[in-house]
Amino acid sequence: MKPGIPKGTRDFSPAEMIRRNHVFDVIKVVFRKFGFEEIETPSMENLSTLEGKYGEEGDKLLFRILNSGPVIDQIREKQDSIRQSDITEKGLRYDLTVPFARYVVMHQNEITFPFRRYQIQPVWRADRPQKGRYREFYQCDADVIGSTSLFNEVELIRIIDEVFRTLIIGITIKLNNRKILAGIAEVIEAPDKLIDITVALDKLDKIGQDKVNEELISKGISQKAIDKIQPLLLLHGSNAEKLEALKKFLQGSQIGMKGIEEMELIFNILKKIDPDFKLPELDISLARGLNYYTGAIIEVKTHDKRSSFTSSICGGGRYDDLTGIFGLPNVSGVGISFGADRICDVLDEVNGYPDFSGGTTRILFVNFGMDEAMHCLRIVNQLRDDGIAAELYPDAAKMKKQMSYADAKKIPYVALIGMDEMTRGEIAIKNMKSGEQSIVSLNELLHILK
Amino acid sequence: MKPGIPKGTRDFSPAEMIRRNHVFDVIKVVFRKFGFEEIETPSMENLSTLEGKYGEEGDKLLFRILNSGPVIDQIREKQDSIRQSDITEKGLRYDLTVPFARYVVMHQNEITFPFRRYQIQPVWRADRPQKGRYREFYQCDADVIGSTSLFNEVELIRIIDEVFRTLIIGITIKLNNRKILAGIAEVIEAPDKLIDITVALDKLDKIGQDKVNEELISKGISQKAIDKIQPLLLLHGSNAEKLEALKKFLQGSQIGMKGIEEMELIFNILKKIDPDFKLPELDISLARGLNYYTGAIIEVKTHDKRSSFTSSICGGGRYDDLTGIFGLPNVSGVGISFGADRICDVLDEVNGYPDFSGGTTRILFVNFGMDEAMHCLRIVNQLRDDGIAAELYPDAAKMKKQMSYADAKKIPYVALIGMDEMTRGEIAIKNMKSGEQSIVSLNELLHILK
Repeated sequence: MKPGIPKGTRDFSPAEMIRRNHVFDVIKVVFRKFGFEEIETPSMENLSTLEGKYGEEGDKLLFRILNSGPVIDQIREKQDSIRQSDITEKGLRYDLTVPFARYVVMHQNEITFPFRRYQIQPVWRADRPQKGRYREFYQCDADVIGSTSLFNEVELIRIIDEVFRTLIIGITIKLNNRKILAGIAEVIEAPDKLIDITVALDKLDKIGQDKVNEELISKGISQKAIDKIQPLLLLHGSNAEKLEALKKFLQGSQIGMKGIEEMELIFNILKKIDPDFKLPELDISLARGLNYYTGAIIEVKTHDKRSSFTSSICGGGRYDDLTGIFGLPNVSGVGISFGADRICDVLDEVNGYPDFSGGTTRILFVNFGMDEAMHCLRIVNQLRDDGIAAELYPDAAKMKKQMSYADAKKIPYVALIGMDEMTRGEIAIKNMKSGEQSIVSLNELLHILK
Repeated sequence: MKPGIPKGTRDFSPAEMIRRNHVFDVIKVVFRKFGFEEIETPSMENLSTLEGKYGEEGDKLLFRILNSGPVIDQIREKQDSIRQSDITEKGLRYDLTVPFARYVVMHQNEITFPFRRYQIQPVWRADRPQKGRYREFYQCDADVIGSTSLFNEVELIRIIDEVFRTLIIGITIKLNNRKILAGIAEVIEAPDKLIDITVALDKLDKIGQDKVNEELISKGISQKAIDKIQPLLLLHGSNAEKLEALKKFLQGSQIGMKGIEEMELIFNILKKIDPDFKLPELDISLARGLNYYTGAIIEVKTHDKRSSFTSSICGGGRYDDLTGIFGLPNVSGVGISFGADRICDVLDEVNGYPDFSGGTTRILFVNFGMDEAMHCLRIVNQLRDDGIAAELYPDAAKMKKQMSYADAKKIPYVALIGMDEMTRGEIAIKNMKSGEQSIVSLNELLHILK
C-alpha cells in the first residue's frame, strides 16, 4: 500500500515550516503592534451557521462532516426520503469572517467594543485545486467591529503596508467604495447590472474601450446606460484626477458623493500622518464580495515582475451588518484578510525569504560512545540552559554519517569530544561553513554560539 | 436564530489565547532547544490512512468528511447497496502519530535520519465530551525516528521535565517497558492475559492485594499463574528495590531481562548527566497503547493537590515498526505527546499562569477629534516603529467610554493630547494602575513603555 494525501492538501517539511512561520510571525507582530487581540474558533461549525452565507456556489464548496453513529443503517431505513440534513449537521470553517460574526453575537456581553480581533487559522474549501488554490489554507484576518470611524480603514491600510514592507514584497493596494458603485448604478439607472458593469470595467486595460462596450451590450445593458457610462471608461491618471471626474459623474447621487467623501478622507488622513506614504490606487472596477461590503473595498496584488501571481494576496472592506444574520443588527465592522499560502507562494517565486541557512540547531555533538556521549550531554544541557539549541547524535555511528547529518540539517557547528578532549576538559569544534577547527572552553563556546 | 457551536468544541477569547499561547510557546521553545524540527500535515487524511490504526473503537470515533457532489442523489440511486465508502473517503486527523508515519514513508528520500520532528496541531475525535475531553484538541508531539539509541528516551524524559518545570506544574513521570511486560507474560505462561493483568495491577494501590487476586480470577487467569504473579503485587519502594525484585522474577525470560537492562540504562544515563535529576518512577502497571509500543512506555500526571486531574497530561513510548503499515519496515522510533488542552485546564485549576495583566496594547491614545487624532496617529506610528503596541481610539467618543475601553483591555497607559498639548508638543499620560498623571516628551514616553 502506497500512502497519499487528499488532493489540494499539502505536507510541510521543516524547511517549509521555517518559511511559513516567518510569514505568520511577521503578520502576527504587526497585528499586535496595532492593538489587535487574538481569538480562535472551532474548525467545525454547525451547518446552520455556514449555509447560505457564501452564496449557492459556496454551499457546494463546504466540507461537510458525516454524523457519527450508524449513518448507513439510517440511510437504508429512510431510503428515498433521505435528506442531506439526516446525515450531516456540521461543516468545516469556510472562512474566518462568518465564524467571527457568530463569535461576536455569542460573546457580545463579554466583548468591549470597538473590538479589534485577529485570527490566524486554516479554512477549507472543496474547490478544484490549481496554482495558488488549495483545499486547506490559512487566512490571517484582522477586523475592527463596533466602530464606524474611517480611522479603522486607515489603520488597516497601514497594517497592509507594514506587513508587505517587512516581508519585502512590492505591492499595489487598490481601493474602491461600495457607495461609489451604488452611485454609478443610480446614475445610469441600472442597479441590477452592477456586477456586469464592474466585471466589464475590470477588463478595460486588457481589451480596450470598444470591447468593453461590446461586452456591456451583450449583458443586456441599455444603449442609454452605456452612453452614460462612457466617462467612467476614460477615467485615468492620479487619484485626484479620477476623483474629480467621478465627482462630476456622481453629482446627482447622494450615496455616490458619500462614497467620494469617504475615499477622500481616507487619502487625506493617510497623507497627513505620513506624507511619504504611498497611497492606495482608486479603482472603481474593484468589486470583490459586492453583496457583502457596504463601504471601503480593499485589494492587494503584488507588482513584483518576477511573480506570476495575478490574483489578490490580501483583501477586505467594510460591512455594516455582518452580525445581523445571527440576531445582532447594526454593528459595523471593517476587516482585511491576508492569504498566507499565496504570500508564501509569491516569496518562493521571487526568492524573497531571508537567509534561514543557520537552521535551528546551532551545534551537534558527535557521539563517540557511551562515556563520551554522557560527557557531551552534560555540556549540551548547559548550552540549552542558555537558550542555545544543541544536539547529541544519538548513536555512536560512523563519523561520516554524523557529519552528513549536520550538513543536511544545516547545523553551523560540530563538536568533537573524544577521550583526550574529555580528559583535558576541552571542546574541539568545527565551523561547518569555513571548515575551520579550534579548541575552546565552554565559556568560549557559549560566546561563539550566542 | 440563536447561534451555537458543535458540542465538545470551544471558542477561545483573547484572554484565553494569551494563556494557551504561553503553553504552546513553552513547549515549542523546549522542542527547538533539543534540536527538533517542525512539520505540519493536512487536517484531512484519506480514510485508508486512518482506518484500522486505532482499533475498532477508534474507527467509530473518526470524523468522516462527506464526499463533495450530489451524494444524496447517489444514495437514492444505490439504495440498499450503499456502503460507507460510497459517501466518504476522507477523515479528520485522529492523532499526530499515524500522519507522521505516513509523512515519513512518503518523504523518506528527503529526510535525513535520525529525524527529530515536532508537530503541534489539532486532532479530532467524536468522543463523548466530558471534563478535560474535547472533540477538537491540540497535540504537541516530539518523535525521533530512525535511531534505536536509548539516548533518545533520555532526551524525551528531559524535555518533559523541562516543559513542566518551566510551566511550574508538579509532575510524576512514570516509566515502564513493553519488554518487561512481555517477560511477565512469559514467566506466568499467560501471554494473552497481559492487558487484564496490567489493568488489575493498576488497581493495587486502590483495592489491595486480595481484590486484585479476585479480579485476576474473574478474568479467567489460572491459579498457577496467579500464584506466580504474587511477587509483583508486593513490589514497592525505590526503583532500585523494584528492579531487584523484578530481576529475580524475570530471570528466566530473555526479553524481560532486556527490558530491565533498558530501564536501568535510562536511569543511569539520567543520573550521570545530572545527579539532581528526579528520576521517573518505575511502574509495571503502566500499559498505555500496549499493542503499539515495543520498548519504553512513558506517562506523566500532575501531583499538584489543587488539581482534580487524574488522567495523564503527557505520554509516549518506543515503537519499533510504526511505518511498516505504510510499507517502510524496520524503522524504530520513540516519541512523546503533550496534551496542551489538559495542561491548560490544570493551569487554570491551580492558578498557575504568569501575570498577563499587562495586556497586549501598552498605550491607548484618547481621540478628541479629527485634528488631535491625526496628531496622535503620528506618535502612535513612532511607537510602533519601536516595536511598542499602541492604539488610537477610533471614534471621538465620550471620555468615559474611551477610559473604560482601556480598562477592559487592561492597557497600562492612556495618552491624552488635546489642543493645548498639541500646541506645546507635549504628551499627557495616565498610569491606569496608580492613577498617576504626568506630562512627557516622546522620548520619555518611549523610555517608560520599553
